[in-house]
Amino acid sequence: MRTGLLYGPVQEDLARVEDVFESLKEVDYAPLAEMLGMVLGGGGKLLRPALTLLAGRFGEYDLDLLVPLAASVELLHTASLVHDDVIDSADTRRGRPTANSAFHNATTVMLGDYMFAHAADQVARTGNIRVIRLFAQTLMVMTKGEIGQDLSAYDSRQTIRDYLQRIGGKTASLFATACEGGAVVAAEPEEWTEALRGYGYNFGMAFQIVDDILDFTGDEAEMGKPVGSDLMQGTLTLPSLLLIERRPDDNPVHKYFEEPRGELLAEAVQAIRGSDIPQESYEMARGFCAAALQSLAVLPEDPARQALEDLTGYALERRS
Amino acid sequence: MRTGLLYGPVQEDLARVEDVFESLKEVDYAPLAEMLGMVLGGGGKLLRPALTLLAGRFGEYDLDLLVPLAASVELLHTASLVHDDVIDSADTRRGRPTANSAFHNATTVMLGDYMFAHAADQVARTGNIRVIRLFAQTLMVMTKGEIGQDLSAYDSRQTIRDYLQRIGGKTASLFATACEGGAVVAAEPEEWTEALRGYGYNFGMAFQIVDDILDFTGDEAEMGKPVGSDLMQGTLTLPSLLLIERRPDDNPVHKYFEEPRGELLAEAVQAIRGSDIPQESYEMARGFCAAALQSLAVLPEDPARQALEDLTGYALERRS
Repeated sequence: MRTGLLYGPVQEDLARVEDVFESLKEVDYAPLAEMLGMVLGGGGKLLRPALTLLAGRFGEYDLDLLVPLAASVELLHTASLVHDDVIDSADTRRGRPTANSAFHNATTVMLGDYMFAHAADQVARTGNIRVIRLFAQTLMVMTKGEIGQDLSAYDSRQTIRDYLQRIGGKTASLFATACEGGAVVAAEPEEWTEALRGYGYNFGMAFQIVDDILDFTGDEAEMGKPVGSDLMQGTLTLPSLLLIERRPDDNPVHKYFEEPRGELLAEAVQAIRGSDIPQESYEMARGFCAAALQSLAVLPEDPARQALEDLTGYALERRS
Repeated sequence: MRTGLLYGPVQEDLARVEDVFESLKEVDYAPLAEMLGMVLGGGGKLLRPALTLLAGRFGEYDLDLLVPLAASVELLHTASLVHDDVIDSADTRRGRPTANSAFHNATTVMLGDYMFAHAADQVARTGNIRVIRLFAQTLMVMTKGEIGQDLSAYDSRQTIRDYLQRIGGKTASLFATACEGGAVVAAEPEEWTEALRGYGYNFGMAFQIVDDILDFTGDEAEMGKPVGSDLMQGTLTLPSLLLIERRPDDNPVHKYFEEPRGELLAEAVQAIRGSDIPQESYEMARGFCAAALQSLAVLPEDPARQALEDLTGYALERRS
């Protein structure tokens, strides 16, 4: 993907963000260096850092400030993924692979904390208190979204509105901050900063909805995770909520939650794949992309604006 | 303890730090508010925030900066305790149920992350980039120490030197930062800042060593956790390392690690309690307290200096 020059005028500059990660891997404690090598291994899409750099193109494009900021965004994202991997006793009951108990979790939690610390250190390098506080507040919103997801697991009473609020916190808030932070550091006018934040938020919503669709319709090999993995964790997303809405009584999701057997999961996945639910879900994602594009209207014509526009197409078309 | 006026000239001002915690508990998401109520419930000693305020007394004592800083120190400490509880699978801490025993692991991790976010937000309110980066780097050092403790669990080859390095990262670094941060925010001369950092570090070392002694010699009711809880988690501390040093061959700690039965734990605890190992361990703690006192020598005579001196006595005499 990186070779496809999807990120237009900032494509080359992303190498400097990767340089930051390389430097972080050089720690004098071998086990930690090894773990960082695993999670900052390279090959990531660097979508969020790209948004930060693109947002910074409309003002004073100073890479000495924008690169640490972009690195911080990606570190915040990666750290929260690491913490997402902490296995819950509730999850293991539902047939997920048994973690080697507290030890596996211990390392995972501390590794994530270590990366949060680096995220804080990188964002502090901008010397911009507004951006530092924006990051802190984004982490609050993200964790609230994650707690919401956790506590609503296996709860079929939740609505699509709950879902949208949850992914707004869990995912879209960081996309919004990636864009807003870039604009603030580049000293852009408030109107543009607000517009870029709006773009980032709506783009993030579309991105997450597509993620949740692909969890049902995607190819396991391309995605690197089993189809239906959200349901396996008790997480209801747009497709499964639409299925519950349409079939409130005879519903394969309810059946699977009551009795977590593989055949019942396959039945739920098939009920969604065989319906027009994926198409309807894509319509909603398309709506958020349209809102994202509309946000850009106040910005000047620029290759960076073009790249941001093109990214909405990528969000809808991606296969993994 | 708070009523004992142990914190001298800053005793009253600590109420403002508690006000910060009260305000953080007011969130519009009930389950999160409930969890925060548990972990920020009050009744804590606020030792680290007191150090920050005391360190700030030697310069421009501005509570609008020092209170958020002191709150940040305590939030960092509490968040790391919350994450520690995930790791240790501990059911009680100080006699109260831990967040982990009441909620799922995944939720506990997110609760800790949420508190780290508030720690970052509070320290950012100082507007002082040096202090913000100091905090980020302290979290790195703390997590490295915790990872070291995790990975060395049940490993009897570790030395007392390894132990001192580990507690330096895990505990003393935050005491050092609590003091240094207060001095920096109060715009004190570098020599005093360095001295207060040195005090904090050595005081923190003594504090942790006494903690580790009390884990063997303390009263379960007073401490709110079982005697020998470190060994139960595979953590070797100064007393158990001294026992291994003295009895390398016929050693009850080895026996317990090989076969984790209650009688063998009791035997290990008794071997330490019945020896002069606690006394020898206290000697080392006393040495660190002496170093802490020596650090204070460059500071002017002041009630704050007196309070810092008195605290070293408390560190050695406390029973829980």
